[in-house]
Amino acid sequence: MISGTTSLIAHLGVPTDSFRAPLIYNPWFESRGIDARVVPMGCEIEDYPSFLPLLFRLRNLTGALVTMPHKVTTAGLLDEASPAVLISGSCNAVRRDAGGRLIGDMFDGEGFVRGMLRKGRDAAGGRALIVGAGGVGSGIAAALAQAGVAEIGLHDSRASVAEQLGERLRRHCPGVGIITGSNDPEGWDIVINATPLGMNPGDPMPLDVSRIDPAAFVGEVVMKQAETPFLAAARERGCMTQIGADMLFEQIPAYLEFFGFPPATSDELRQVSQLSC
Amino acid sequence: MISGTTSLIAHLGVPTDSFRAPLIYNPWFESRGIDARVVPMGCEIEDYPSFLPLLFRLRNLTGALVTMPHKVTTAGLLDEASPAVLISGSCNAVRRDAGGRLIGDMFDGEGFVRGMLRKGRDAAGGRALIVGAGGVGSGIAAALAQAGVAEIGLHDSRASVAEQLGERLRRHCPGVGIITGSNDPEGWDIVINATPLGMNPGDPMPLDVSRIDPAAFVGEVVMKQAETPFLAAARERGCMTQIGADMLFEQIPAYLEFFGFPPATSDELRQVSQLSC
Repeated sequence: MISGTTSLIAHLGVPTDSFRAPLIYNPWFESRGIDARVVPMGCEIEDYPSFLPLLFRLRNLTGALVTMPHKVTTAGLLDEASPAVLISGSCNAVRRDAGGRLIGDMFDGEGFVRGMLRKGRDAAGGRALIVGAGGVGSGIAAALAQAGVAEIGLHDSRASVAEQLGERLRRHCPGVGIITGSNDPEGWDIVINATPLGMNPGDPMPLDVSRIDPAAFVGEVVMKQAETPFLAAARERGCMTQIGADMLFEQIPAYLEFFGFPPATSDELRQVSQLSC
Repeated sequence: MISGTTSLIAHLGVPTDSFRAPLIYNPWFESRGIDARVVPMGCEIEDYPSFLPLLFRLRNLTGALVTMPHKVTTAGLLDEASPAVLISGSCNAVRRDAGGRLIGDMFDGEGFVRGMLRKGRDAAGGRALIVGAGGVGSGIAAALAQAGVAEIGLHDSRASVAEQLGERLRRHCPGVGIITGSNDPEGWDIVINATPLGMNPGDPMPLDVSRIDPAAFVGEVVMKQAETPFLAAARERGCMTQIGADMLFEQIPAYLEFFGFPPATSDELRQVSQLSC
């Protein structure tokens, strides 16, 4: 039950309708008797740079989860950024320190890599194609680079966005080969849709599934439905797949630690979750 | 359960620890299956004029409940103010219209007058002494003036605050006699503590209880405890009394209507409330 002593975790993005985090964090807080709640706040793009610093002045706010379309903007509003934020140019978790400085980190990619590992697939030495180089795509790129992939392919419908992410990866992770410009999955052993395609009925496929190697590991960031048409098609080809919700569950323990809450496991979070998918 | 589709009612004030509204509104929303929640937000005084307009730009915000220390500031941030706001110079409820304009009203006083009426006491023709001319005191003064009292006495430790409220009352309600400057309750048949005195152990009495007429109706705005030492002393003198929580419960149906929710009764709200006092 929310009261005047409850610590707020703002969930920032717009629109908020498809937010899933409150349905996982809040039942977990309740199950542990922790007086904290995740509260969605549908902040408009143009208001966000003014709103975020004021929000963090609230006395009962502990932190913020950040999602589309604010992840890239957030990276530019921090007083202190983690390596994953610097590489990805994107931030999905913010807290303040005792002096009120805004500290940011990026856990999307960590969730993706943890999820792969739990399925028995180590990204180290692999070749990963990421289609969509916005907030979540760049977070996955940063985490895969830090996890030791040999090569990363980047594609975005806005070519310059993929190029800029490629430049940051080359600067921070010189040992990883970076290729930009194509969304052809042939020859890649990790293939990831990091675009919003799949959120709405009738969306086109983010890439040509018929050219994915059946031995590839195929991942997805869209969480609107349990299995997107893209993942279903990849699974039919024989690929091992990872749904968007896996990435979500695997990253939450990292978030909770960042905000200063007691440790949690992703299994524990799944058990209490009120998610319908 | 809060989700991405939940309508937020911000509860604005600082500190938030003693907020009671979430423990009444939220169980009522749940009992009715209404996807809305009151969320306390501890906004600092210096941030408030910037924060309020940005907060009302959030796509999933329906309105705000405003409490100390922001009620007077809020009155100056509105695009449209009710008569009670204009008289009291104070606002405790804000919503936006379809065009994004901020509309404000003030229900503290209405709650007080409704509570009196339910106890069988009509304020019309009476003489009311209000000690404390800040947000809540001025709201009660406006509602009593609109309910037809003959005379209002105003006292505040900041004499100019009482004077300014007196001026506004004289302007908007010329039929009501206004006296300012004394907190002596002798001769008044409605006596109200509208100061924060009673929130903390060891607070002095807001006025000399031994001089209250035993036939007087004595009210209180402090809600930290069920019965403050002030009310207990008045009750011992034989006075009919009204606790702060009565004012709270009686005003909530007015708030809910203002925000566009279905009608509620104060009895229904009391039944579902999670308040311990």
